[in-house]
Amino acid sequence: MKTVDFIPFQSVTLTDGFWKDRCDLNKNVSLSNVRQRFEESGRFDALRFNYAKTGKKPHIFYDSDVAKWMEAVAYLIEQDPDSMREHEALCEELIDCMERAQREDGYLNSEHQQVSPHLIFSNRDRHELYCAGHLIEAAIAYHKATGRDRFLKIMERYCDLIERVFLVENSAGFMTPGHEEIELALIKLYRHTKNGKYLNMARFFLEMRGNNQKDKPIYEDNLFGSQDDVDIRHLESANGHCVRALYLYSGIADLAAETGDALLFENLEKVFSDITNSKMYITGGVGSTPTTESFTVPYDLPNRTAYTESCCAVAMMMFASRMRKLSKQAKYGHLCERVLYNAMLSSTSLDGKSFFYENPLEVALEEYGREVAVPRRQHARLPITQRVEVFSCSCCPPNINRFFAHLGDYICVDEGDALCIEQYISAELNTPHGHIAIIEDYAREGKVCIHGHGYTAKAISLRVPEWCKKLTATLDEKSITPEIRDGYAYFAVGEDFSLDLNFHISLSFVSTNSMVRDNIGRMALTRGPVVYCIEGVDNGERLNRIEISPNALCDATEKLDFHGLYSVTLPAFRLKESNALYFDASEIATEQVHVKCIPYFAFANRGESDMLVWIRRRK
Amino acid sequence: MKTVDFIPFQSVTLTDGFWKDRCDLNKNVSLSNVRQRFEESGRFDALRFNYAKTGKKPHIFYDSDVAKWMEAVAYLIEQDPDSMREHEALCEELIDCMERAQREDGYLNSEHQQVSPHLIFSNRDRHELYCAGHLIEAAIAYHKATGRDRFLKIMERYCDLIERVFLVENSAGFMTPGHEEIELALIKLYRHTKNGKYLNMARFFLEMRGNNQKDKPIYEDNLFGSQDDVDIRHLESANGHCVRALYLYSGIADLAAETGDALLFENLEKVFSDITNSKMYITGGVGSTPTTESFTVPYDLPNRTAYTESCCAVAMMMFASRMRKLSKQAKYGHLCERVLYNAMLSSTSLDGKSFFYENPLEVALEEYGREVAVPRRQHARLPITQRVEVFSCSCCPPNINRFFAHLGDYICVDEGDALCIEQYISAELNTPHGHIAIIEDYAREGKVCIHGHGYTAKAISLRVPEWCKKLTATLDEKSITPEIRDGYAYFAVGEDFSLDLNFHISLSFVSTNSMVRDNIGRMALTRGPVVYCIEGVDNGERLNRIEISPNALCDATEKLDFHGLYSVTLPAFRLKESNALYFDASEIATEQVHVKCIPYFAFANRGESDMLVWIRRRK
Repeated sequence: MKTVDFIPFQSVTLTDGFWKDRCDLNKNVSLSNVRQRFEESGRFDALRFNYAKTGKKPHIFYDSDVAKWMEAVAYLIEQDPDSMREHEALCEELIDCMERAQREDGYLNSEHQQVSPHLIFSNRDRHELYCAGHLIEAAIAYHKATGRDRFLKIMERYCDLIERVFLVENSAGFMTPGHEEIELALIKLYRHTKNGKYLNMARFFLEMRGNNQKDKPIYEDNLFGSQDDVDIRHLESANGHCVRALYLYSGIADLAAETGDALLFENLEKVFSDITNSKMYITGGVGSTPTTESFTVPYDLPNRTAYTESCCAVAMMMFASRMRKLSKQAKYGHLCERVLYNAMLSSTSLDGKSFFYENPLEVALEEYGREVAVPRRQHARLPITQRVEVFSCSCCPPNINRFFAHLGDYICVDEGDALCIEQYISAELNTPHGHIAIIEDYAREGKVCIHGHGYTAKAISLRVPEWCKKLTATLDEKSITPEIRDGYAYFAVGEDFSLDLNFHISLSFVSTNSMVRDNIGRMALTRGPVVYCIEGVDNGERLNRIEISPNALCDATEKLDFHGLYSVTLPAFRLKESNALYFDASEIATEQVHVKCIPYFAFANRGESDMLVWIRRRK
Repeated sequence: MKTVDFIPFQSVTLTDGFWKDRCDLNKNVSLSNVRQRFEESGRFDALRFNYAKTGKKPHIFYDSDVAKWMEAVAYLIEQDPDSMREHEALCEELIDCMERAQREDGYLNSEHQQVSPHLIFSNRDRHELYCAGHLIEAAIAYHKATGRDRFLKIMERYCDLIERVFLVENSAGFMTPGHEEIELALIKLYRHTKNGKYLNMARFFLEMRGNNQKDKPIYEDNLFGSQDDVDIRHLESANGHCVRALYLYSGIADLAAETGDALLFENLEKVFSDITNSKMYITGGVGSTPTTESFTVPYDLPNRTAYTESCCAVAMMMFASRMRKLSKQAKYGHLCERVLYNAMLSSTSLDGKSFFYENPLEVALEEYGREVAVPRRQHARLPITQRVEVFSCSCCPPNINRFFAHLGDYICVDEGDALCIEQYISAELNTPHGHIAIIEDYAREGKVCIHGHGYTAKAISLRVPEWCKKLTATLDEKSITPEIRDGYAYFAVGEDFSLDLNFHISLSFVSTNSMVRDNIGRMALTRGPVVYCIEGVDNGERLNRIEISPNALCDATEKLDFHGLYSVTLPAFRLKESNALYFDASEIATEQVHVKCIPYFAFANRGESDMLVWIRRRK
């Protein structure tokens, strides 16, 4: 199995455009805002081992929250060290604290050391190895960014202990962790240090999962929740808690890349198909029930109670990009694009300060109103309707921080003998094959320019978007018909070239397989990669009263509106309210209205409002 | 306020036809079946005070289950004493046991005396007064039926204690019961004994509700659940647990009838409108959430998670018929008819043996399948898909028994100077104004004949059904145009008359106010009083893939099928399954199919299957 790598973000400089704006927002606003909220909520104090002093009790996953934030800082030190001085100082302080607090035997966990020492390595759902994994990833990033290895050494000492307890003595209360993360972190550590024992540890945690008698299911009687239903050599479908599952699949993909184990890849292909053919929202979000934050069964995609955690968007990017390293198939890049422009962007408010945990595909405020009839304890778990700056389970904000901090990692694959552009993000790339500049007006106009300077590889391929129905190209100002194979356009290019692509973006209505109950008789508006929605603030509440004919696209008007993207206005019909509760169907009354559609990711930025992606279709 | 009474069932003999069949089924099958299940589950043993011997622990509401069954037996003793000998013997045995077990001070409750004596009158949600109320109703019925007053005396002694504890000493842990029932039972006892103290007690429990500091809400922080949000003189809307609420409203209506208090009636009118205009399913079922079995907010009528308990159907009949006694308005009879042919009939299997607790308006088996992803403890509360013979909370089966046992009570009102036919049920009625025979082919053909013999009142009025668009009549074989006022047709008749009415029944599609989210873009098929549904067993599963044009009625074919009623076959379209999860809306594919519609009440009689009342409308 031949594997490839993406050009790493360290060799990529984002340039002015849609995505640099968002990454700058992350760097300049989100990261600091998360820092403030974490300071207030005692997350940093946890890792300062200040519990006795402050009385702010650490939570079992605080270490991972802080680790993800530190990882983001490390990535940004590499790109803009001056702007990170203050954050770097905090990282140093935290590393000091960790160094002092680490136990003689290497153990390090702020909650267990300060609050629950009697529970160390006793219960697989207490997130110790998950926290360790995130700290390892942060330590690697920090070492790369600063060249200083204190943090890395701390984590290596901790890994020694983990190896002894789990692989040598088998003395913990469990064999594999409830929340996956350590697996992929250990492979990253192996790649960073070249020390084979970390690969061995990763393999152990991956291969023991669903394959031992010691582990008890996290969700009582349900083996799916903690991915204990099958071992990794018998995987066929995506099951259980989505973030955990996707971290597991990412770890397996890493193991496949390191070992060349084709069976693992084949199984992951089945899982990938299961997700994208039957368990994924149009936004690229996943998770069909908030009850256990999990995948459920094929075609179960309720919109109002979608779970679609922001961390799932991050994890989908992790999984799909790893699959791309194992196999050149356009579907992986398609998925990344779907996630990027929708589930990922929706996670953060347009001002960069607030975040969604769930990213529902419908908000019906009436659903919240009905809860008045029910005691608080029995209220339905419904998604929040407005993003907030921090939540008690605040895994998402720092995950978003670190994701945008290394967005450059997802753009271009080095295939050894040529480059392959996967995502159209304006950037300068220094590659082993020469310099590449991507200039995009992709989501707005469906156009991209690629400039090569001193490009030695003679050929370049580019992913043709899933939504593209017509592609025109000019190479060095000459019109050219590209060779298109399996979703990629191939071009023979010279040392210096200029390639202009037009993917002919247009409005479309999308339907769903009729197996998905919630979307039957409904359509979603898309424009290239961007899924649209309608909001109550523009169109009146109770949005299901609106119905749109597919022909409405002929009369659409577009207006530059949301951060450089278009809003779209369409003629539509709205059911009138009636006096009677039930009446003869012939008496149904509608009125003509115009409906304003905005990019889904921009919803909930103008106050609390109904929102709907899947609009009722008028035949 | 002038009040009227219905001709009591004792003066009514059902004759061959749709309803006699059902009442016979109740008498010959359901009643015995419930008896067997109650015997097995220890319900009778509870009232035999056999707990110490059998170890079968009584539940706090077992007494009420048994009382309703005894009440049914009493009603049937009046109609067909020979067939009730065995059941009557069991009643006598139970009365023996109660007589022996009743405490010196009058207290009587099988659970509290045998299991929880320390909790007597301590907690308003332990159903003591609810059980007492049902026992009082049973005792009155039994006294009327047999002339023997032992049971009645037991309950009068118990009432003495209740009066002392609640009205005199105020020494209980609460002032008003969690589950209403005692109120209307006490007024019934007052009417039966003419002893004013029972009216006084009823008034106390009614007027103290929501009007005292002692009572704590049943549902934690929620005053709606136990109807404590307002007192009865400030009622405006229907709130909280539906059965409890409707029993309360029935009690208030009784109090209004006895006291002539117009404000109470005006408030009940508001409540009635609130229910029928915004909180009632098309079947006449109520209850929009199983979480607390309660009314929620206006227009919240989810179909799959409808609660619509069978006891609610009984309670709606109780409430609406009491309102009819206070005011001649056709809407009360309309509601009774809606409930009778739909929510009430659906409660029982066609073989009479099994019962629904909830009566949902949609069954989507996929909703049950998705629960595999979730631990059992966190499964959604979804309605059962098949009727069962007994459930742990088996309030409904004996309530259905007693309802059908006195169905004659709902047919005809004696207005003093004339009769008014409210429900078209084949029967012979001996009234103070002479003999009336009703012969109906109502639900099938929309036709009714009324024969009068020795009728002295000179006029008769008949409710014109809500669905009737054309009424033709012949009186004594002469065509006649009736005077129609406020939903009633008025006829001047002689001593012996023969009146033939044709309400011109036809198929209709019904729409719902667009405020009801679940029904937007959907229609329900009705035929006269009968709501139709489609089932997977006839039409394939995943019924939401089907869409029907309103014009399909032109091509409908009808077939005599379900117990004398028609099934209806309509041309329709069904969405095909697609390969892709998401695809361009122009590629959507449908196939032409024929859809078989059956009366809603007959669903779930042919194995587990999807079911749908509100079918998607094809424009």
